[in-house]
Amino acid sequence: MSGEKVKVAIVGSTGYGGVELIRFLLGHPEVEIVSVISASSAGSLISEGFPHLTDIVVQPLDGVDAQEIAAKADVVFTATPSGVSGKLVPELLQVGLKVIDLSGDFRIKDGATYEEWYKHEAPEDQLLEQAVYGLCEINGDEVARSTGLISNPGCYPTATLLGLIPALSAGWIDPHSIIIDAKSGVSGAGRGLSLTSHYGEINENLKVYKINKHQHIPEVEQSLSQIAGEPVTVTFTTHLVPMTRGIMSTMYAGLKGDYTETDLVELYRQYYEGRSFVRIREAGKWPATKEVFGSNYCDIGFAVDPRTKRVTIVSVIDNVVKGAAGQAIQNLNIMMGWDETTGLKLSPVYP
Amino acid sequence: MSGEKVKVAIVGSTGYGGVELIRFLLGHPEVEIVSVISASSAGSLISEGFPHLTDIVVQPLDGVDAQEIAAKADVVFTATPSGVSGKLVPELLQVGLKVIDLSGDFRIKDGATYEEWYKHEAPEDQLLEQAVYGLCEINGDEVARSTGLISNPGCYPTATLLGLIPALSAGWIDPHSIIIDAKSGVSGAGRGLSLTSHYGEINENLKVYKINKHQHIPEVEQSLSQIAGEPVTVTFTTHLVPMTRGIMSTMYAGLKGDYTETDLVELYRQYYEGRSFVRIREAGKWPATKEVFGSNYCDIGFAVDPRTKRVTIVSVIDNVVKGAAGQAIQNLNIMMGWDETTGLKLSPVYP
Amino acid sequence: MSGEKVKVAIVGSTGYGGVELIRFLLGHPEVEIVSVISASSAGSLISEGFPHLTDIVVQPLDGVDAQEIAAKADVVFTATPSGVSGKLVPELLQVGLKVIDLSGDFRIKDGATYEEWYKHEAPEDQLLEQAVYGLCEINGDEVARSTGLISNPGCYPTATLLGLIPALSAGWIDPHSIIIDAKSGVSGAGRGLSLTSHYGEINENLKVYKINKHQHIPEVEQSLSQIAGEPVTVTFTTHLVPMTRGIMSTMYAGLKGDYTETDLVELYRQYYEGRSFVRIREAGKWPATKEVFGSNYCDIGFAVDPRTKRVTIVSVIDNVVKGAAGQAIQNLNIMMGWDETTGLKLSPVYP
Amino acid sequence: MSGEKVKVAIVGSTGYGGVELIRFLLGHPEVEIVSVISASSAGSLISEGFPHLTDIVVQPLDGVDAQEIAAKADVVFTATPSGVSGKLVPELLQVGLKVIDLSGDFRIKDGATYEEWYKHEAPEDQLLEQAVYGLCEINGDEVARSTGLISNPGCYPTATLLGLIPALSAGWIDPHSIIIDAKSGVSGAGRGLSLTSHYGEINENLKVYKINKHQHIPEVEQSLSQIAGEPVTVTFTTHLVPMTRGIMSTMYAGLKGDYTETDLVELYRQYYEGRSFVRIREAGKWPATKEVFGSNYCDIGFAVDPRTKRVTIVSVIDNVVKGAAGQAIQNLNIMMGWDETTGLKLSPVYP
Repeated sequence: MSGEKVKVAIVGSTGYGGVELIRFLLGHPEVEIVSVISASSAGSLISEGFPHLTDIVVQPLDGVDAQEIAAKADVVFTATPSGVSGKLVPELLQVGLKVIDLSGDFRIKDGATYEEWYKHEAPEDQLLEQAVYGLCEINGDEVARSTGLISNPGCYPTATLLGLIPALSAGWIDPHSIIIDAKSGVSGAGRGLSLTSHYGEINENLKVYKINKHQHIPEVEQSLSQIAGEPVTVTFTTHLVPMTRGIMSTMYAGLKGDYTETDLVELYRQYYEGRSFVRIREAGKWPATKEVFGSNYCDIGFAVDPRTKRVTIVSVIDNVVKGAAGQAIQNLNIMMGWDETTGLKLSPVYP
Repeated sequence: MSGEKVKVAIVGSTGYGGVELIRFLLGHPEVEIVSVISASSAGSLISEGFPHLTDIVVQPLDGVDAQEIAAKADVVFTATPSGVSGKLVPELLQVGLKVIDLSGDFRIKDGATYEEWYKHEAPEDQLLEQAVYGLCEINGDEVARSTGLISNPGCYPTATLLGLIPALSAGWIDPHSIIIDAKSGVSGAGRGLSLTSHYGEINENLKVYKINKHQHIPEVEQSLSQIAGEPVTVTFTTHLVPMTRGIMSTMYAGLKGDYTETDLVELYRQYYEGRSFVRIREAGKWPATKEVFGSNYCDIGFAVDPRTKRVTIVSVIDNVVKGAAGQAIQNLNIMMGWDETTGLKLSPVYP
Repeated sequence: MSGEKVKVAIVGSTGYGGVELIRFLLGHPEVEIVSVISASSAGSLISEGFPHLTDIVVQPLDGVDAQEIAAKADVVFTATPSGVSGKLVPELLQVGLKVIDLSGDFRIKDGATYEEWYKHEAPEDQLLEQAVYGLCEINGDEVARSTGLISNPGCYPTATLLGLIPALSAGWIDPHSIIIDAKSGVSGAGRGLSLTSHYGEINENLKVYKINKHQHIPEVEQSLSQIAGEPVTVTFTTHLVPMTRGIMSTMYAGLKGDYTETDLVELYRQYYEGRSFVRIREAGKWPATKEVFGSNYCDIGFAVDPRTKRVTIVSVIDNVVKGAAGQAIQNLNIMMGWDETTGLKLSPVYP
Repeated sequence: MSGEKVKVAIVGSTGYGGVELIRFLLGHPEVEIVSVISASSAGSLISEGFPHLTDIVVQPLDGVDAQEIAAKADVVFTATPSGVSGKLVPELLQVGLKVIDLSGDFRIKDGATYEEWYKHEAPEDQLLEQAVYGLCEINGDEVARSTGLISNPGCYPTATLLGLIPALSAGWIDPHSIIIDAKSGVSGAGRGLSLTSHYGEINENLKVYKINKHQHIPEVEQSLSQIAGEPVTVTFTTHLVPMTRGIMSTMYAGLKGDYTETDLVELYRQYYEGRSFVRIREAGKWPATKEVFGSNYCDIGFAVDPRTKRVTIVSVIDNVVKGAAGQAIQNLNIMMGWDETTGLKLSPVYP
């Protein structure tokens, strides 16, 4: 590695994904944050809205201007809402920036499918094609060869796909039997005000929402279909849990053989060998969300029920880290040829 | 109704189920609490351990003595742990008391199955046979004819069975396809100290536990098998959610026809017609646990996915009320021939 | 009491105070809710916004029209925001309704002081004079003689004044030494969206706000000054605690004699003799907010530090009940000559 | 700095303080953890009890043996309970180790005072004298000159003293007027099981405890008396807040002049100039606990009430970091002559 640091900019710095990018990038030895950008708060200090960054980030927020970003930065993270990224990213690519996009706008390869689930216009096909889906442990090689646009996976798909792919890939589970019961902490809904995130409504409450309608469903099905080599359709339920961070995906599938929990543990440990951020629990143990809080880990465990011949797979991540900012930086690391753990080796915060 | 009140005693008054029985029974117009009983704290005031009852319950706690209870009371609620009830209830019946038991000891008709899941000796067969399984909306008639022993259902089974039985009974779902993803607030684990209920371990955390091993599974399967007329085996996952009260059972099953959400709403509304405590949400809406907090309601909603031909059924209760104390009192009401809502008409506490 | 029920209407039914009024009034034996009113949602069902009231409140929401209310109701609760009540209440009084107002608009007798703290125009002096400050345990006689307008106290003042008045009234504490460190659950901020009540911002967080600037300060000082017979100025800090319900006021004052905790317990028990809703903890014990959750109790405890000659007084209430809806109904009871506990005897919900 | 890392051991690794030491020390560039030690779990893996450390800490837990520790390590952190440290630390010093003790056993210089508040025997006077009270921003010079035993401050005293000392030192506040209303997250009570930390008892609850009796009081008074040059006695209330981490100390004192908030901001900024971990909020703003979550910061803000001539000082820390493990490492840094922020520059985790 040279002494020169890579210069990064963050668009959407004043969202939860944005401040989490800042938290990790400040400790990243190979990068320098040259611009924190916010369309709505340009000119002010980020610590006005996020006092936890007082004396930590002292440069004022910049506005969104592709030319100006290009003048300062090599790589830009777009932690912008779906719909906004779709319009902004082409401009950023045009001026020669590498882009890691945290919105969902470039994850679905088929524009029509995107429009059906996201309810607004898809980016151009050529861009959708160019974008590499940055599920690091699965698509690392593609990320390394990327020509400049990484589409960072959604939080639910990250937990879900890392939990399903090894078994599906090995042909151990029936692709038509997959049911996903996913649960998320409230930060997944972002900082925008809504009754759903209003404390009195969600504290001491467990809610289900968007059953079979969540926009992360086509993203999950796209990857599973690729792996299975045939179209896969899943049942997918999303729940809001009264906690700030954390996703648990509890997944059910019919087993195609008499595989034991120990078999699954071995299969997954082999599949993820050498990948630091996936940890497979031993047979009979399952992870809890707090065990990855604040970190880039994805922890996975299994239960096989010989009575019903089904496996239950439990996968947990911190939605703001492995489900957003952390994986985005992991993608940067892979793209730049660095160790994928660079700047990401923080242990979970416990308790 | 005569002016004379029915005299009730509560064994296990110093557990969460016990104090909830007290909360509701104090407002019940037909009963009088004549004895609050605790094996461990006899002689002291319940408000020493539960200051919220200061000046409300002023009679000292009694010890556990069947003869003494029979001298004072007509009916006794046993909110005692599994294993304890199994030994105590026969004594209470012997002295002529009617018993509503909140432990799991009399729910499983087959002693061997009980011992397999509960890991201790089952009560005598004759008692298991005599005990009426008090799932009020399903077995109300049997409860009304009971000769003295009601076995109050478990919290998970109550939410789950009320959610599944109408569709299963109508033959609309495949009994071999049922997957139950259940979530509970932490009070379900009781007041006994354990690391699992330690604040630092469960706050801001979502845990899975006892996958396919929870002792409520045979209780669910027993009822489902009766309804289906064939043995039913389910996949059953239990989660701990960082909140005090509330159970949500998210259930998945294959549909045996092209039933819509509206069809299901109608089916369930007819099935539960005249039963005040089951509320069916309109098509496209699902209940949240807070919407039944502190009340005896069970709220149910549906999502049909035409792509996978599966239905997702969401059923919520307050585990301490409909899942324990409230349903126990509902059983008392039915057994005594009173309106089943007597003393139970409290609205949910919101927010 | 006659067989005829008193007819009540609730303006502001779709706020947290409004739905709590509904919860208690539904179980009140002497009243009938004839109209639930909402300026913003007239014509719809309250259960659309508050599904916990599904099948419980089935009459549609009415609009705000004084004549129409008068045609139906005898008494009206105005659970409307400060500023709104000030304009609406005169109209309601004009058409002959009795009004119990839950806003702060009629609590401050001096219009100029009101305007200084509330930052909008005060109601007419004549109305401010007419309004009875309904701190039930202190001003019960005045409430009983009221000619039609009760101003229901604020949540912080209720906990604070009930905790201070007996000692101040007895001359045991120095009125110039009073410091109030108050803490509230988040529901106190209402259902209106704001970043302060956004789950991700307040969960696992403890915030201080409006130090010495809270609009409840002049209300506290007005009552303390009356009792002390001289102007009393207090230091008053307000905190937001990550819980939905509950207020704790921790109060500090210099003692004017060698009073012990036992002395204080006796003084307070005498002062509140015959008042069901104030419970004084024995010496060496202090209440917690959960011990009054969902109920109309105010619990108080003391600690005397002989080293500093100061007393610490701890007073807790449920802000939505004794701090709003519950006390409002208690005021109705007193005004109508009923037992003050009518319809309010619900035990705290625990756990 | 040499290439050689300093070798550290942690006694009490399986407590909350111990795992937090591990989290930070793993990222510390100058140290190597050579031994994680637990009296109760020697021989097993720490990840058995703390699965979040799976694959992160893979060396088995060692037992407590001073000779063995000395054979491996240069410095040892004792995150052991009060009473245990008092006996263990002399042995560790004897074998030549430098010790940073996180218990309260060496904080109080006067043995009799220690015994009065801690209720067990004090360590020898000579050790109490030798121990340097490691409140880094105040006693940094003494820490740097330490001969081997640092007594790490308590969590409440850290927040409180950093908030009071500059004003007291400047003579701006009356030392006899100080009232401290302190609030802590539940992790402060450790991992030991107790009803107070039982989820159902503390969730959605705010409790006061040990009013004027907390063992941190003599620690606070000892330091304030030194600064004031006369004996200082404080009123000190401790509260438990339903959150895992965080301490807020809200402090009240009479002002000895017409100082404004701006004056105080300037005074404190000057006092803490060059110290990275104390951040002073601008006039009119106050910190919240979440703004320091997971980090070593102490944030302070002020409110002056000209009506009462009192100042309210708000000071927040993360009790597990600046109140325990973080400050312990900061002490190590200062003792070793490193920059005090080494290994501690993690930003707060938000949200």
